[in-house]
Order: sequence, then structure tokens, then C-alpha cells
Amino acid sequence: MGRVTRRRRVIRLGRQGVAARPDTLAVEEPLEVRVAGHPLSVTMRTPGHDFDLAAGFLVSEGVIRGSSDIQGIRYCAGAVDDGTNTYNVVDVSLAPGVAPPDPSVERNFYTTSSCGVCGKASLDAVRTSAFWTVHDDPVRFDTSLLEQLPDRLRAAQPVFDRTGGLHAAGLFTADGELLCAREDVGRHNAVDKVLGWAAREDRLPLTGTILMVSGRASFELVQKAVMGGIPALAAVSAPSSLAAELATDAGLTLVGFLRGSSMNVYSGADRLGLEQAAQLGA
Amino acid sequence: MGRVTRRRRVIRLGRQGVAARPDTLAVEEPLEVRVAGHPLSVTMRTPGHDFDLAAGFLVSEGVIRGSSDIQGIRYCAGAVDDGTNTYNVVDVSLAPGVAPPDPSVERNFYTTSSCGVCGKASLDAVRTSAFWTVHDDPVRFDTSLLEQLPDRLRAAQPVFDRTGGLHAAGLFTADGELLCAREDVGRHNAVDKVLGWAAREDRLPLTGTILMVSGRASFELVQKAVMGGIPALAAVSAPSSLAAELATDAGLTLVGFLRGSSMNVYSGADRLGLEQAAQLGA
Repeated sequence: MGRVTRRRRVIRLGRQGVAARPDTLAVEEPLEVRVAGHPLSVTMRTPGHDFDLAAGFLVSEGVIRGSSDIQGIRYCAGAVDDGTNTYNVVDVSLAPGVAPPDPSVERNFYTTSSCGVCGKASLDAVRTSAFWTVHDDPVRFDTSLLEQLPDRLRAAQPVFDRTGGLHAAGLFTADGELLCAREDVGRHNAVDKVLGWAAREDRLPLTGTILMVSGRASFELVQKAVMGGIPALAAVSAPSSLAAELATDAGLTLVGFLRGSSMNVYSGADRLGLEQAAQLGA
Repeated sequence: MGRVTRRRRVIRLGRQGVAARPDTLAVEEPLEVRVAGHPLSVTMRTPGHDFDLAAGFLVSEGVIRGSSDIQGIRYCAGAVDDGTNTYNVVDVSLAPGVAPPDPSVERNFYTTSSCGVCGKASLDAVRTSAFWTVHDDPVRFDTSLLEQLPDRLRAAQPVFDRTGGLHAAGLFTADGELLCAREDVGRHNAVDKVLGWAAREDRLPLTGTILMVSGRASFELVQKAVMGGIPALAAVSAPSSLAAELATDAGLTLVGFLRGSSMNVYSGADRLGLEQAAQLGA
């Protein structure tokens, strides 16, 4: 855990007065992702599972869909002046025939050339970029399982307990098996680390699974779930309007405000057996 | 508030059973910022205060420092196929003599050419980009004022109350006056909206102020505070390691876990009168 947390002196003001004491902070460091030596993106992340993060970023961008699309991933050597490796630059070699990402990759999911920038264009861009669809995934989830997910995700967060400073993403089966959990200072990175794990394990598309995330559900998180072929996303807090619209458009089940035995279902309630119940006023 | 929130059917599962009902969601839409017609960035934001957001983005990037650096800001017309304006593209004209931003702007604060990508390089980049320093800002803040800030920020968040889905940033004086509060689905956008307001009102650098943010304190938020000349940043949740390191390096007071009458001070405790108290074990 050496690079995941860092000790630091802090002055604590509380009921017992003022005292200096050591505190544990979640580490944030830049990671540069390169493809065939060309810099593609820099993200602030918590070190650990960096190869998963790099692979997951490429899944999210529609570049790769499995381990056969990757020839190799390595840390670049000798990146800093004194010759030491910061382990903050990862280079991905794509397999022959895999198209490298568009250098303007950050714009891909927000705008298209045919239409100015707007929410509808963002939805269209996801539809045309995804390798698969989750519309026809027949999986069903018990709401009693969903109720357990926030606590189970929290239990899989060793670093959060010591720092209070990390987002988490956990991938579960409909039977409640935890397949993969990842933490990061950035919620999008935690999800990319899960997607990259799945790509490297050749588990994409992630049919029959549900992704539980701490915090809120943004457009970006729903987009990442769709790109991973995940049919359901649950969040502790609120979704945005565009997150709910993309979930509906893509056929993904979106649950928000999942707390205790209560939850809001914004789309795909049929996978939870709730659509008919709501119509009956049950 | 038409574009800030959106109504949507949701299925609510709670103690009263299952029911369909309307729900209010925070709107998330892309905003493209252009400078002199050239696309610079696309960010997912909550509509409203878009000109502040565009100006604040340019403050954060070290491009502008006041209203005289801006010749004009306008929505681009006719951006979509049918000729209607989405109000999602903003074009900024810089005043003569103001250098346009580096097209590789997203990399600026994460890496420099002299050193590979690492936390130290990120700190160096902020130091060389800032127009001003907060090291010598003599302002002092009462901890009794800090205790009030989370509630006062929440009170200035009309949309959060209806959606639960927005981050907020509020700028206060040492006397407790609220100068500006902004909400957004993205916490970095909420801060940029505050910085842009200040730039357009010619209040930069924001000497003698404290910025209160919902959520956590990342490197990026500390960087934005430094670029705005704000000497103190307080957050409801945890800072990251690099946020605390940048705050120390830049001479900024950083407070985390600000809840009720307790708080952690990660740097600049002298501005709160706590450094000596901690040494005395008071």
C-alpha cells in the first residue's frame, strides 16, 4: 500500500481541542497513458492497477474489447531527469489491425461533426461507438441484492477506511458474487480500472452484471458501463439528467439514491421486477 | 431554472412500497469552450453562468486575469442541423496582446517537458503558471466562521435541495460575507464559475477570501484556488496527498473534513491561529 496512501502531519481541531497528529491521505498522482509511444491522456489517479486503468480507458473510448487487442502494456523507463522511474507513464501496444485512438479522443463522446455539441449528440456518439448493446441482456436482479451492495462495496474498500478519500466501483453478478472492486481518487478511474480488469481477463462484454459506484451517476459513468456491456448501474447518490437519458437510450438499468432498502429506478425497472409493480401501485 | 433541472418519471422503492412518480434531476449538458473560434475544451456541466464558466476555465489555465483580458464572450449561433441554438458552445475573444491558450492545455498542470509526469512536476507547473502568489496574504480566519461555512454553502444551493445532485463552491470573506456561490454537476466547474465571476468583476486576485467546496479537495481544486489568488480552501471531505502538497508548496490554507466544530488543517494553520495552539497541545 506504500504508494496508495501517504502519511502527513495534520492539525486536528475537535472536541478535545487542538492537536497535531499524523493523518493518512489517499495518494493522487498523474498517470500518462501512451499508445505506441504517443501521449494520449493524463489523468490524476491513485496509483495501483495502472495497467487496468490504461486498458479500461481504451475500453471506454471504444479502442479495445479484449486481451487479444493488446500486444503489451508496460511502464515507460527513465522518464525523469535523474533516471528513476516514477511509474507514472504507461505505454500500451495495440495488436496488429487494432485502430489507434483518435487524437481528439476527449471530444468523442460529447460532440459529433454532424450536429453541434448537445446532449443528443452525446447519446448518438455512445450508440455509434459501442461494440455491443445491453438492450437485450435478460438478466434480472433482486432488489434485496441491491440493498446489500453499498455495504458490500464499502467492505471491499480498504483504503477508504483509512483516508475517507476514495471513490469505489464494484462489479457484482446477479447472484451477489463480487467479481472486481477498485478504488481511486477519481470515480471515472475506479470504473476504468474495473473495465480494464475485465478486458485483460477477456470478460467483455460484462453480460449479467451490475456495477455499484460510490457517489453520483454522471453521463460519463453510464457511458463507461455501456462500453463495457454492463446492463445495470447503481449509485449511492443522484444521477444527472443526461445519465438517465443515456441509460434509457442504451437499455441500461439505472438505480440512484440506493440507501438501505430504498432506491430510485430511473430506467430499466423491468430487470428489477418493478415496472409492473409500479403500474399496479403495489 | 428551466435548463438547470429536468423532471423525469422515476420508480421509487421505499417503505411505502413501489410507486412511479415524477422526480427532479440536475441537468448535465456538454459545453464547448472556444477561443477566437478554435475549440479548446468540452466539459459536461449544468447550464447556467456559462460565461463565468468559460472565463473561469481560462483563469484556471493561466490565460486571463481580469475583464480587460476579455474582448467579448458570446454563444455561437446556429450550431445544430435545424438552425436552433443549443446554447452549448461559448466563444471567447481575447483582448489584443493576450496570448491564446496552448492547444495542449489539458496537459499543462500535470506534466512539464523537463521532467516526466509526476506529482513534483505538477507542483512546478502551477508555480510557473500562476500570475500571483498567496504566500504573503496576511488574512486570518476565525475557526468559528469556518464552522458555519458548510451550512451557509448548503443554504446557497437552491438546486441541490431539489435534486441532491450538484456540487457547490462558495466564496466568503473573512467577515463571513458570501461573495459568490455556484452549483454544477462537476465540482471543478462550480469552482471555475466562481473564478470566472471574479475575473469578469475584476476581483482577481481574490486576496482575503476563503473558498468552501462540497465534497473532496483534489489537486485540481487547490490548483484553481491558487490560480485565483485565493489564500484558503475548505472542503467537507478528504483532500488527496497531492492537494495537501500543493497547498503547502503554494502557501494556501487547506482545511478538510469540515463538519460541525471539527476540522483537519493540512497546511497554513497559522491563518487560523492553530499552529501555535497545536504546538502547545492546547
